Amino acid sequence: MNCIIASTSTIHGSEYLAYLEEALKDLYKDVTEIIFIPYARPGGISHDQYTQKAKEGLAFLDAEVKGLHEFENPAEALKNAQALFTGGGNTFLLVSQLYNQKVLEPLQQAIKSGTPYLGTSAGSNICGQTMGTTNDMPIVYPPSFKTLGILEFNLNPHYLDPDPNSTHKGETRETRIKEFHHLNSMPVVGLREGSWLCVTENDIVLEGGLKARVFEKDQDAYEVENGTSFKDLK
Amino acid sequence: MNCIIASTSTIHGSEYLAYLEEALKDLYKDVTEIIFIPYARPGGISHDQYTQKAKEGLAFLDAEVKGLHEFENPAEALKNAQALFTGGGNTFLLVSQLYNQKVLEPLQQAIKSGTPYLGTSAGSNICGQTMGTTNDMPIVYPPSFKTLGILEFNLNPHYLDPDPNSTHKGETRETRIKEFHHLNSMPVVGLREGSWLCVTENDIVLEGGLKARVFEKDQDAYEVENGTSFKDLK
Repeated sequence: MNCIIASTSTIHGSEYLAYLEEALKDLYKDVTEIIFIPYARPGGISHDQYTQKAKEGLAFLDAEVKGLHEFENPAEALKNAQALFTGGGNTFLLVSQLYNQKVLEPLQQAIKSGTPYLGTSAGSNICGQTMGTTNDMPIVYPPSFKTLGILEFNLNPHYLDPDPNSTHKGETRETRIKEFHHLNSMPVVGLREGSWLCVTENDIVLEGGLKARVFEKDQDAYEVENGTSFKDLK
Repeated sequence: MNCIIASTSTIHGSEYLAYLEEALKDLYKDVTEIIFIPYARPGGISHDQYTQKAKEGLAFLDAEVKGLHEFENPAEALKNAQALFTGGGNTFLLVSQLYNQKVLEPLQQAIKSGTPYLGTSAGSNICGQTMGTTNDMPIVYPPSFKTLGILEFNLNPHYLDPDPNSTHKGETRETRIKEFHHLNSMPVVGLREGSWLCVTENDIVLEGGLKARVFEKDQDAYEVENGTSFKDLK
């Protein structure tokens, strides 16, 4: 496998995908066409608008970007793709569309067979075992919460530390993940904005320079350093 | 109907349910037994632990509090209940349990027939048309997102204004609700912590002293004052 699974597409004070430029030049080396999966529709923008945004964000590459929605047979398109990118937005909508368009399994096969894959936010969330640790609002009812299972654990993108000064009574991210572990057993990696996982055939490594927070069932959460391997986390 | 549908059980600097004391003395006037629905299990606590917490929070009343899980036939218990309270926690878990225990319809019937009802957070969320505007994490897959429909609109409890100083790239609450309206048509009332809806046979009134934020499809969001009636919002 050959994936970049990123917490976010954009970091504060920087342009769309800009902080990933060097990593993406390496991921998409020698690639002339990237298929973009626009299903998560952030802010409800159209598939065409979102694909245009991806094109602009990847303009530093010498590759054409096409939206998966432009293909008559999306499953076939994934099978034949040189490279892939799933953008962020709403995970419930993304997962619903992957099921409805019957492309969840073709996408999984393409990634497992080594097609270079970039996921950001919702596009990263779906690389876990389930979408059960997304932060998104359930705006549509998907046929299942089961996702690609590229990783043996789940992800929480845009991981946010509790604000010690907050007076808000909504649950913190850590409380929510603790509730998840009362009903589910897989570990959860909280990926802070600016971090990504670099997934290759033999390893899964935390990159981007930040620590990540790991939640395992019936254990206290713990911090891991940049460069940590998650290949044995399951 | 006779309901208090509250954004939160607890406000900053105050004890569990304390800010609702006067309103609850009125809601539960002459009631000697309240059935508590503990299914949402905040932080994963047990049904027994959660029921104990509700008992302590309602100690200012002259009423016994029993957990719905203590009854052999929960549907029958709801039918015969003098008064009801559904506590907050995880909405996905609450809704799953309401379906699995086959009590969604009996609960709806009890409320519609005038049984006094208190909902806080997740227990309020379920009073809308769907749970599609919850903030919670999808830790379990419910049979449906459809909820009680006591209100003709949806709720977003713990409504939080965007932080103008935030550098975080996760979606704001308003962006999430906007995404909801790309796929759904019912209005959404963002209830700030400290607010509640007082639902009677003829009216639905915003109480608690704060403004609420209303989101209607294809319109700009707008603020409404304490005391606003939502009886025509649909």
